[in-house]
Amino acid sequence: MDVRADGTENFVIGVDYGTLSGRAVVVRVRDGKELGSAVFDYPHAVLTDALPAETSGIEPARLPGDWALQVPNDYRDVLRQAVPAAVADAGIDPAAVVGIATDFTACTMVPVKADGTPLNELAEFANCPHAYVKLWRHHAAQPQADRINALAKERGEEWLPRYGGLISSEWEFAKGLQLLEEAPEVYAAMDRWIEAADWIVWQLCGNYVRNACTAGYKGIYQDGKYPSEDYLAALNPDFRNFVSSKLEHTIGRLGDAAGYLTAEAAAWTGLPEGIAVAVGNVDAHVTAPAARAVEPGQLVAIMGTSTCHVMNSSGLSEVPGMCGVVDGGIVDGLWGYEAGQSGVGDIFGWFTGNGVPPEYHEEAARRGLGIHAYLTELASGLAIGEHGLIALDWHSGNRSVLVDHELSGVIVGQTLATRPEDTYRALLEATAFGTRTIVDAFRNSGVPVREFIVAGGLIKNELLMQIYADVTGLRLSTIGSTQGPALGAAIHAAVAAGRYPDARSAAEAMGAEPGAVYTPIPANVAAYEELFREYRTLHDYFGRGANEVMHRLKAIQREAKAPLLPARVPV
Amino acid sequence: MDVRADGTENFVIGVDYGTLSGRAVVVRVRDGKELGSAVFDYPHAVLTDALPAETSGIEPARLPGDWALQVPNDYRDVLRQAVPAAVADAGIDPAAVVGIATDFTACTMVPVKADGTPLNELAEFANCPHAYVKLWRHHAAQPQADRINALAKERGEEWLPRYGGLISSEWEFAKGLQLLEEAPEVYAAMDRWIEAADWIVWQLCGNYVRNACTAGYKGIYQDGKYPSEDYLAALNPDFRNFVSSKLEHTIGRLGDAAGYLTAEAAAWTGLPEGIAVAVGNVDAHVTAPAARAVEPGQLVAIMGTSTCHVMNSSGLSEVPGMCGVVDGGIVDGLWGYEAGQSGVGDIFGWFTGNGVPPEYHEEAARRGLGIHAYLTELASGLAIGEHGLIALDWHSGNRSVLVDHELSGVIVGQTLATRPEDTYRALLEATAFGTRTIVDAFRNSGVPVREFIVAGGLIKNELLMQIYADVTGLRLSTIGSTQGPALGAAIHAAVAAGRYPDARSAAEAMGAEPGAVYTPIPANVAAYEELFREYRTLHDYFGRGANEVMHRLKAIQREAKAPLLPARVPV
Repeated sequence: MDVRADGTENFVIGVDYGTLSGRAVVVRVRDGKELGSAVFDYPHAVLTDALPAETSGIEPARLPGDWALQVPNDYRDVLRQAVPAAVADAGIDPAAVVGIATDFTACTMVPVKADGTPLNELAEFANCPHAYVKLWRHHAAQPQADRINALAKERGEEWLPRYGGLISSEWEFAKGLQLLEEAPEVYAAMDRWIEAADWIVWQLCGNYVRNACTAGYKGIYQDGKYPSEDYLAALNPDFRNFVSSKLEHTIGRLGDAAGYLTAEAAAWTGLPEGIAVAVGNVDAHVTAPAARAVEPGQLVAIMGTSTCHVMNSSGLSEVPGMCGVVDGGIVDGLWGYEAGQSGVGDIFGWFTGNGVPPEYHEEAARRGLGIHAYLTELASGLAIGEHGLIALDWHSGNRSVLVDHELSGVIVGQTLATRPEDTYRALLEATAFGTRTIVDAFRNSGVPVREFIVAGGLIKNELLMQIYADVTGLRLSTIGSTQGPALGAAIHAAVAAGRYPDARSAAEAMGAEPGAVYTPIPANVAAYEELFREYRTLHDYFGRGANEVMHRLKAIQREAKAPLLPARVPV
Repeated sequence: MDVRADGTENFVIGVDYGTLSGRAVVVRVRDGKELGSAVFDYPHAVLTDALPAETSGIEPARLPGDWALQVPNDYRDVLRQAVPAAVADAGIDPAAVVGIATDFTACTMVPVKADGTPLNELAEFANCPHAYVKLWRHHAAQPQADRINALAKERGEEWLPRYGGLISSEWEFAKGLQLLEEAPEVYAAMDRWIEAADWIVWQLCGNYVRNACTAGYKGIYQDGKYPSEDYLAALNPDFRNFVSSKLEHTIGRLGDAAGYLTAEAAAWTGLPEGIAVAVGNVDAHVTAPAARAVEPGQLVAIMGTSTCHVMNSSGLSEVPGMCGVVDGGIVDGLWGYEAGQSGVGDIFGWFTGNGVPPEYHEEAARRGLGIHAYLTELASGLAIGEHGLIALDWHSGNRSVLVDHELSGVIVGQTLATRPEDTYRALLEATAFGTRTIVDAFRNSGVPVREFIVAGGLIKNELLMQIYADVTGLRLSTIGSTQGPALGAAIHAAVAAGRYPDARSAAEAMGAEPGAVYTPIPANVAAYEELFREYRTLHDYFGRGANEVMHRLKAIQREAKAPLLPARVPV
């Protein structure tokens, strides 16, 4: 039996921290076989309306729109709950585990004291929204991001083109500046402003190591340096020392060990003290080795509520609207490109939850299908263009290539004959057009894209996969694992434990076989080319300044809602 | 008791022919009191997919998209069923009825033999789609309308500006040209091409009289003449004699008697043979006297599935995008202007039927509310602009001011937080912006609009009425009758019977008192002004050629659907 700790088999643990839960997977070092797993839902999920009631004796602080916070202890609970459960599920001897690695959502930021204690765990800050984790999808720092971009453009900051010309409101600097300006006392009390990806590693091994991936993609760390103090002071005089006093720290390469499991973390997890703990990493980026897609031109998309695209290239190009290009950002030795779509599965979920009438739900239930499966079946019966619709997939803003979270959804062409399956299919297609826009941006900048590998929850929708193949014109394969990020983390654990020399060789041995393959159908490619032209025209009209209606509607909306919110965020 | 036929009281019957049913109302001549009514649903409703199964032994012909036909005998059934039922409901002696008048949807066209027999009632044409009534919302003659407009513009035809520069695909010439070109044998067999408004009067009194209203608005009859034979021959050589051989006929003024009730029609209706039968008329136009709104500057909107706007003015102006301006088109002696919105209540109905999730229907049912009432209640709680949305109300195309049935709906601004009530309110507002666009067109052409009077099924929605008052900035009153068109027809019956000298004096005596009054709220007016600017920008972008995406989507849709349809319409 190959799962015993008989000296011939070793195992690693990958822990994937998602938006709503953490998943631990036990993987065999020799061949990547996934032997067991467990999921633990964060008790506080995502805080968008108010702080948790239990954190103070008083009325919990309410949150303005666009806020999204988390509670760091939920992340520790994943180690306490999901890791032992996964080991039990695998039926292995924990003594045979040789390493652990994590991946995390990003950019998700924790304000901490010098010893790593999150500020929200201090009594004086328990009812301060700014003392909590700012989740990746906290979008309230847009005004700060706008200033960061305007100033960088004006000064011709050389790092700006590495990020496609725009720094996101989701990232370290915008969120940090928001914290400074809205809650200066919290900012002053904070010793470090760190990625959750690195905070959880710190909890495991007792060392703070800043991972190369988020430092580069989210922290504007390029060519060994950060934005200058002059630049930061021009944003806000009190921001001058942001890098030196809050951010800067030793950088760890992906796949290296950040340290070794502490006695405390060994007690939480039931794993042996002293095993390797890998440098922190990001969910999307670890998926590339899990899908054996670490060669140049292999575009990997992790498609879930949102989509993250990662791809290696041997050269550095500045691609407009990308999230970033980072040396060693995915695997050491190649330039790693990242792009993203801020709403994908979220949009489909919003539609099924808000826009589908009772008869459809009843018929789906009668047939024993989920509502997505039923709508997909109906949408599959439509010829391309038969619905007469074009949508823009910006219900959660646009990350690549416009980097503008104030954009919103559009649907053009609805008539009295438009049915839910028509709109559903138009939304599926809109997200494919969004990916196509990213592929075109790569190509127009001379970065080749040869094939498309998809991971994430949406790979089970075959219609969606075929649409993506037809819209991009690329051969599409899906990852043959249901837990790509956790497997990818486990691959890094094996490297950190010294069982493979690097992530590329570990990926070859441990990465998942491809699942399904979708080949573009020439007639469909041609039909979608025509619809994509319409998408691109609307994309540029609404997204590039010809009509700023979406920004104005958001401003009007904020003003209309204003009386309902506290005048100022409590600190 | 004032309802007896004691020699002191007389009554008239108004019959309103709508899209799906006919309604008869018994009205007292002295004061317009409505004493009884009855409705009869057309057995064949609207034919959009196929001809009726019973009309032939063979497979009924299928209909292409955009077709909408009716069966003329359904209109006779209204006389047989609804009129006697209304008289019974009123409890009057039918001998006291002195006149009957009708109003009809328009432009609804019947191809007939010289004796008035509809072609579909001839065995050889029973399975020919083109032998049936083309309902107002038959939109399949758009290619013909496009040619009519292009040629008229090229030749500088002087009648074109009377119709705002565009002739609709719904009207007599476009539908007639479609008939000629797609079914020449039906066209050849047809002796007259007549409005259903006039056909039903012919059934009642045995005389064919062409009413001044539809002849002017739908039949391009201006200053005593029609488009020239040269013009018609340039459209299609076989169309040269269309006016002289199919269309031209004695014109009857509104309110005049077309003739007297025949013995056959007396038997159908139970009314006295020989009573006055008024010249045919149109539902929207007869509503103006029913609402006592026949003075210049009183804009009357009949708001149901679609909206028709009518208004008198003392002068002739050429207003871009109007449906038409006709001398004596509403009441004799004034210029009558007509405008319209091709989808209003239809759009709200489409949304509630296709875009509202089960929980909303359940909660509405639990509260004993209709889904419209429930959504309206939720939408009433929103501040203006709080939903962050702008919609274009073109789900059924645009009549005024763009006259383009190939336009379609748009919604901009949806996010993952958008709820059904947000979208519902945005659709209500979009139709108000559509009306505002019409009001602005009048004003920009020097035609004053002083107040806004609303009739039709939508007057019961108080939120909608207040939105219209706020968006237009006009004092809005609703008609105090639930059967405006039938009352308006009855007023014309009284004039035809000689009981009043003209419609204006009859309206004063018999028209309904106002119902509710809505005054614009200054803060709302200002808030909507801002949103209306966004509507206007999108209106012009999508509607005036900057981006022809809607036309291209319709073309792609037709092509995608083409294999499902017969290659050619059977004749």
